[in-house]
Amino acid sequence: MDEVMADALAEHIVRYNRDFQTKITMEELHGKWLWEVVPTDRHYALESYLRSDDFFENLDVMPECQRVMRRLQSKFDVFIATAAMEVPTSFHQKYRWLAKHFPFIPASHIVYCGDKGILNADYLVDDNPRQLRRFQGEGILFTSPHNMEVKGYRRVNDWLDVEMLFLG
Amino acid sequence: MDEVMADALAEHIVRYNRDFQTKITMEELHGKWLWEVVPTDRHYALESYLRSDDFFENLDVMPECQRVMRRLQSKFDVFIATAAMEVPTSFHQKYRWLAKHFPFIPASHIVYCGDKGILNADYLVDDNPRQLRRFQGEGILFTSPHNMEVKGYRRVNDWLDVEMLFLG
Repeated sequence: MDEVMADALAEHIVRYNRDFQTKITMEELHGKWLWEVVPTDRHYALESYLRSDDFFENLDVMPECQRVMRRLQSKFDVFIATAAMEVPTSFHQKYRWLAKHFPFIPASHIVYCGDKGILNADYLVDDNPRQLRRFQGEGILFTSPHNMEVKGYRRVNDWLDVEMLFLG
Repeated sequence: MDEVMADALAEHIVRYNRDFQTKITMEELHGKWLWEVVPTDRHYALESYLRSDDFFENLDVMPECQRVMRRLQSKFDVFIATAAMEVPTSFHQKYRWLAKHFPFIPASHIVYCGDKGILNADYLVDDNPRQLRRFQGEGILFTSPHNMEVKGYRRVNDWLDVEMLFLG
């Protein structure tokens, strides 16, 4: 969900730049997690954004995601899996965000987990190589600044790539 | 989780009997869901119990469950999967219940889903035949009043049976 369907990184950067008067850009994050660029003594701030009541609920939807998800759903059995267990305060926000932006995905096809190795599916589209490694089907790497240097997976740069890959 | 680890049915019966001055017992539910025994015009009450703020958090742990789960965890990769998506208000309550009674299960091994067919595991211990049918590994039926007449699965009557089955 985060960095694939929902632009959590953009919101993280906006909040961090606002609070610390910095000008971190997406480009600077090439090959790095935001956590690696932000000094350790300010990690508490990144953590507090994640745990705030209005972080996940207000994230922008990634471009073309809704349209392509609708098309995918007409042909495949599509589940949304998110590592929500890492931030328990996100449960309701994520649920409401999905209901708002993806009302056509039934609740039965939403999965909150921590380890995506537990998923039984043919493909997993994810930005996180750690999750793709554990997954037993084919992992598809969704480009995000932090994973620019990662090799070993088919890569999609955006939802148009996802559409091309699965729908031709 | 419900009816296997947590005694949701017992709490449901206590609340219903209290509110409607009835005396429904576990025995009467042989082969039936509580929803089949309670008149349709009172289903709103059963629903309201599920959606209350204090239902899931206060459920009793099934006898021997903690001890056997600890033993299983020492030998297997144990995940807890619960159809929490059917009752979104249960997310936090279930999380806190698990943290309280099963602190040795890491958050990464908790899965909230609606359809257990999405789980990649060798075994699923569940009281609900609908979930076992969808599951691709071996489904083990955990006895509950409603499933007394269900055939076609290995059956465990309690956690001592689970222990015997997996740990000999």
